[in-house]
Amino acid sequence: MCIIARNKSGVLKDIATVFAEHHANIIMIHLEACEGQGDEAFEELYVEFEGEIIEEDLLNGLQTLPGVSNVIIHRSFGDIFGKRVIIIGGGAQVAQVAMGAVNEADRHNIRGERISVDTIPLVGEKTLAQAVDAVTRLPRASILVLAGSLMGGDVSIAVDRVKAAGIPVITLNMAGTVVDHADLVVTDPTQAGVFAVMQISSIAVFDIFRVKGRKF
Amino acid sequence: MCIIARNKSGVLKDIATVFAEHHANIIMIHLEACEGQGDEAFEELYVEFEGEIIEEDLLNGLQTLPGVSNVIIHRSFGDIFGKRVIIIGGGAQVAQVAMGAVNEADRHNIRGERISVDTIPLVGEKTLAQAVDAVTRLPRASILVLAGSLMGGDVSIAVDRVKAAGIPVITLNMAGTVVDHADLVVTDPTQAGVFAVMQISSIAVFDIFRVKGRKF
Repeated sequence: MCIIARNKSGVLKDIATVFAEHHANIIMIHLEACEGQGDEAFEELYVEFEGEIIEEDLLNGLQTLPGVSNVIIHRSFGDIFGKRVIIIGGGAQVAQVAMGAVNEADRHNIRGERISVDTIPLVGEKTLAQAVDAVTRLPRASILVLAGSLMGGDVSIAVDRVKAAGIPVITLNMAGTVVDHADLVVTDPTQAGVFAVMQISSIAVFDIFRVKGRKF
Repeated sequence: MCIIARNKSGVLKDIATVFAEHHANIIMIHLEACEGQGDEAFEELYVEFEGEIIEEDLLNGLQTLPGVSNVIIHRSFGDIFGKRVIIIGGGAQVAQVAMGAVNEADRHNIRGERISVDTIPLVGEKTLAQAVDAVTRLPRASILVLAGSLMGGDVSIAVDRVKAAGIPVITLNMAGTVVDHADLVVTDPTQAGVFAVMQISSIAVFDIFRVKGRKF
């Protein structure tokens, strides 16, 4: 749901209190400053929650808060954008992996799934390692593909942490130690993208851990 | 920062209270269930905040909460993944726009910017319109590219709402009314992706509103 509320540092406390009172467990909040209505500054809070709640009571509780001006129900990001393939690496290769992943995701989404393909081209071991580590904190990140020609050092260590967080990692066949840390090494970038989508699909039969250690 | 806390519906209220007491304005929270430590279920809360705070005091305040077991400082998603180009539409064309956008983003990111390219291939007017509307709620979404061969109806109305939220919209040259609602219409999908990145870059000189109404 979206909550339009006054832009003050205590407003989230009041809203969180109402959610707690109605036994709703907040799983995501995102705040975005939006245009003021009249003279006051307002913010839009996007909130996802779970739990057995009486929606009408929760809505009434939120709408009676002094800082809240409106509450709107939306579908969740999970329903709309679904599971995310994350592709990180060099521009030329990220683009090729994305092409494979987007085309394969298309075939799955037509059949009712929701798989999105999110990418960032980056250069440099430290920069890459930071981005790889951040994947474990990204909402709905389901698999990581590293697309490049040379990766190792801190990137390889970050890959181990991503795997430990339960996110499988595919790398292109490349120089550097990262290939020794990945769950799967794939030479063709298009195929790497397709494998990534097949792995996270709920209807495909591919299981990365059945081909672990093989190089394609 | 990441806060490891007990998985209870009231824990966010306590945490939000500490942030409010330290005059920190929370701008994003994401909760992720993580492995239990011992017999208890724990969750990882990723929190981004702003405001002039004394970080050490805030950390101490959080760490003394009964539900909190650990607090770790991370760089923000904005620092790591930056502004987002969002590409929605048919698989074949989304992939081509993504190729242009990823390659152009690469050239910008090498010079210190952070631009990521996020995509989802989808089919159907209602499905597309929902995804387009959701772009206004996506964190760091800076520009939308619609890549397809036929879009109109509810999609066009959703495009108007995205523009009203301050997010420019590029469409491929296609059938349907959506081209009349876009800020820019581009025939070549690679160029559409490049234009999108040029528009949101802080160092490029392109301004979509100076070529508004032209078709490329």
